[in-house]
Amino acid sequence: MPEGTPRQDLIVGVDLGGTKILSGVFTPQLKRIATAKLSTKSERGYGAVVERIDRCIRDAVDEADVSMKQIRGIGIGAPGAVNPETGEVLFAPNLKWKDAPLKRDLEKMLGVPVFAENDCNVCTLGVHAVELDAKPQNIVGIFVGTGIGAGIFINGRLFGGFNRTAGEIGHMVLQVGGPKCGCGNRGCFEALASRTAIFRKLSDAVRDGAKSQLTELLGPGEEITDLKSGDLRKAIRKGDKLVQKVVEEASEYIGIATANVINFLNPEVIVLGGGVLDALQDDMMPLIQTTARDYAMTGTDKGIQIIASRLGDEAGITGSAVLARQGLKG
Amino acid sequence: MPEGTPRQDLIVGVDLGGTKILSGVFTPQLKRIATAKLSTKSERGYGAVVERIDRCIRDAVDEADVSMKQIRGIGIGAPGAVNPETGEVLFAPNLKWKDAPLKRDLEKMLGVPVFAENDCNVCTLGVHAVELDAKPQNIVGIFVGTGIGAGIFINGRLFGGFNRTAGEIGHMVLQVGGPKCGCGNRGCFEALASRTAIFRKLSDAVRDGAKSQLTELLGPGEEITDLKSGDLRKAIRKGDKLVQKVVEEASEYIGIATANVINFLNPEVIVLGGGVLDALQDDMMPLIQTTARDYAMTGTDKGIQIIASRLGDEAGITGSAVLARQGLKG
Repeated sequence: MPEGTPRQDLIVGVDLGGTKILSGVFTPQLKRIATAKLSTKSERGYGAVVERIDRCIRDAVDEADVSMKQIRGIGIGAPGAVNPETGEVLFAPNLKWKDAPLKRDLEKMLGVPVFAENDCNVCTLGVHAVELDAKPQNIVGIFVGTGIGAGIFINGRLFGGFNRTAGEIGHMVLQVGGPKCGCGNRGCFEALASRTAIFRKLSDAVRDGAKSQLTELLGPGEEITDLKSGDLRKAIRKGDKLVQKVVEEASEYIGIATANVINFLNPEVIVLGGGVLDALQDDMMPLIQTTARDYAMTGTDKGIQIIASRLGDEAGITGSAVLARQGLKG
Repeated sequence: MPEGTPRQDLIVGVDLGGTKILSGVFTPQLKRIATAKLSTKSERGYGAVVERIDRCIRDAVDEADVSMKQIRGIGIGAPGAVNPETGEVLFAPNLKWKDAPLKRDLEKMLGVPVFAENDCNVCTLGVHAVELDAKPQNIVGIFVGTGIGAGIFINGRLFGGFNRTAGEIGHMVLQVGGPKCGCGNRGCFEALASRTAIFRKLSDAVRDGAKSQLTELLGPGEEITDLKSGDLRKAIRKGDKLVQKVVEEASEYIGIATANVINFLNPEVIVLGGGVLDALQDDMMPLIQTTARDYAMTGTDKGIQIIASRLGDEAGITGSAVLARQGLKG
């Protein structure tokens, strides 16, 4: 490129979460140039959040020392059912959005093509492009954080299902009659193995008199449920038996859910990510893998990879950049 | 067609089961002309079973008053993992087959193109073609009989997965730590709601002193587990509370598994079939539907149909005929 001609092929990936917005500026080769972060403040309503997304994107662009004119496209992953053709967020319970015309509104504000998808779908797309060299035709990404969701990639493209809600694996029942889930049912995967479920179990155990070093990490007025996944790792490193046991139980449930996916959909790769896995990968993956292969029917898991994503926090912005890149091509 | 010129466009569909072989001669419009039936006798080994399939096909052709020369193609559904490209049965535990070149051997014996697929896949294909007018792009068929399996139809075609074992929904864990399954694990869907599971529960309850009219249906030396799904319907009609309760429990598990499919894959239609459903459709479907919609996350089941197949015993031969018709076109 001749000096003085600024590049005009950059893309932005946005990860819209219930509590924070992340954005990143990428080259077409998915090299990350800069990022920005803002709280979501969903309680202020749809219009305010869209303005914050706009600001977060402009912050990242500024941070990258480039201008909006150099951005060819923007991808965004949103926590809910998204129609990728229209860029509408059909419903997003955490944000209390319904039929929100996200693509249209952002394009109006930013003057750049916008592509929207479900957040777990874009994370899966990111892993596929960056960690799996875009090779496998069928993969499932399972993301374990505050909640649990999945992204499904079939025959070389994302699969949204009839209502664009495919991948709601957090509400797959693993234990009929099991613990109550936020959705109102019992025994959902999310009620057994999410960050929320793990901390609720730990909190209950400590209240019932069990010993844990987690109590030493609490600031004044803090509850065990205020702690982070990283604190679990620290406690395990210090030999905390209670935390180890609860994390092992969660790993077994994640392994069983993985086996359910192998038995039912039989994808080539199952990739695990999300805040809990990012913090506890080394502690959880061996047991997840063993359990998944134990519960997979004989012959069904042959050659299937069960791996942890190394993209961590960046899976969302990376995948959204991939989404934009695909959209611009297509 | 001028008189005297026999039609040459007929197709044969074969349903290869663990205990019996069914075959049917169809017109290209899927009108059934004749059928035949033979026991499988899998204990005699692969070669003997292939000869019996050959005989069963020739029986149906004879029954239809036509000759093999009028048959353009044969489709066959086999109980196991099948590679539809090569027509090999990769493994079929019930038949004790491994890497069996079924297509090649049948073509050698019959001199007609043969197309092979997994049995639940062909049943789903049959329902799609005959009962759903080949319209929906994404459907899942769940077949509840002695065991439980599923067929997955995505983006307008059957989906086999990486090891051609997609659809093993019978081994989806619904109740961690639940009853022992034939596969060695616990709490599988099949261990909770199959014909085998239903009769085991009834047999245990009667042994523990519960009253049931099923005992009156037993011939000398017969056990409750020797009865058929139709006997359950008769007992319910006569007001048998025990049978009603156990069938209701199975319906709830089937409803929960259906919800798991809605939450995870979100197909347009879920169709239920198999021996248990064929016999107990009226008794089970309302509870299956209510339970599935209860357990489906809000918004995920909107517009999704949960229906029972009316093809009954003929789903397999019909679907295999559809398979052959597709294969001959393609």
